Amino acid sequence: MQAVPPALERLIDDLTRLPGIGRKTATRLALYMLRRPAAESLGLAEDLSVLHSSIRLCAGCFTFSETDPCPICDDPKRNSRLVCVVEEPGDMIAVEKTGTFKGVYHILHGVLSPMDGIGPEELKIRELYQRITDGNLEEILLATSSTVPGEATASYLIDQLQRFSIRVTRLACGIPMGMDIKYADEHTLARAIDSRQFLQR
Amino acid sequence: MQAVPPALERLIDDLTRLPGIGRKTATRLALYMLRRPAAESLGLAEDLSVLHSSIRLCAGCFTFSETDPCPICDDPKRNSRLVCVVEEPGDMIAVEKTGTFKGVYHILHGVLSPMDGIGPEELKIRELYQRITDGNLEEILLATSSTVPGEATASYLIDQLQRFSIRVTRLACGIPMGMDIKYADEHTLARAIDSRQFLQR
Repeated sequence: MQAVPPALERLIDDLTRLPGIGRKTATRLALYMLRRPAAESLGLAEDLSVLHSSIRLCAGCFTFSETDPCPICDDPKRNSRLVCVVEEPGDMIAVEKTGTFKGVYHILHGVLSPMDGIGPEELKIRELYQRITDGNLEEILLATSSTVPGEATASYLIDQLQRFSIRVTRLACGIPMGMDIKYADEHTLARAIDSRQFLQR
Repeated sequence: MQAVPPALERLIDDLTRLPGIGRKTATRLALYMLRRPAAESLGLAEDLSVLHSSIRLCAGCFTFSETDPCPICDDPKRNSRLVCVVEEPGDMIAVEKTGTFKGVYHILHGVLSPMDGIGPEELKIRELYQRITDGNLEEILLATSSTVPGEATASYLIDQLQRFSIRVTRLACGIPMGMDIKYADEHTLARAIDSRQFLQR
């Protein structure tokens, strides 16, 4: 369309690829950036361009981090024998926000979803068994979301972890069913951690 | 917070500055970009970094454009004697989408808002008078939004334009009251253009 200059059109196209952003929102964001000082767009561009090069996966817990091991795995004050298993780095951020959890993490990078061809091999599940075999872990806290795939992943892990002699716990009820844990409020999530239930010990 | 690496935190901060994007949405977007190939972030960074340098204001209609005059002002098939006055470039994009309007534009870059210190001098209103004085214009179509400040700006212009012997029209009723024209559906907007009402001739 003549009304949209190509440089603006390209930016709108880029933004439309982001989740939850349609064409109207993308246009509104792009026009907003154009009205703001150039320094703001350049700052965002700079931060985007170094994003992938400055962030890697921690070899311990597989979270996104600028260092390996990540600050949490590297922190001697954290209980490295208590491992909280979450779906994604965003879930770890949500758990950290509660300030309740003093252990370390294990990021699965997804949930089991046979329909999408995502089985145990596609997730960091073998690496979880390896951590259990290698270290003297005490407890695995399963903190996958209470969605259908999150529950299915937890069930699979509960089943598989029976062959290790390790305590396995699950986040307590308290999270509304069907809610992604990223969006739970901090107090609900904190209570769910405090009252976690023993499944195997 | 330890859980969020600084490079990711900076990107989240940048995104939070955009309109309608809170901290949770910004975090979700940033984590999404991190999961996608680096090329996508670099592409967005590139398009952002050239945004301001490649786009300027058209000296004719004051829209954002890579060229001056813009493709619309420069198009001999457009009726340069019919000028559609809109608040912002986004409104011009909405009008263009209807495919109904064959004239040219004049972008005010805002609306009158005395409470925010925005008077006629802050908008491209003097430039509109200049266009009327300079050229042999036939008709001014006022296409400000049917919001309170949009209507106030239209009223002010209707009043001021009486001293020029020029036809002044306003978008027809058909747009729901209180709705920003950027968000009107294309058919409603097209009908509003077709049945525009004469205010002065």
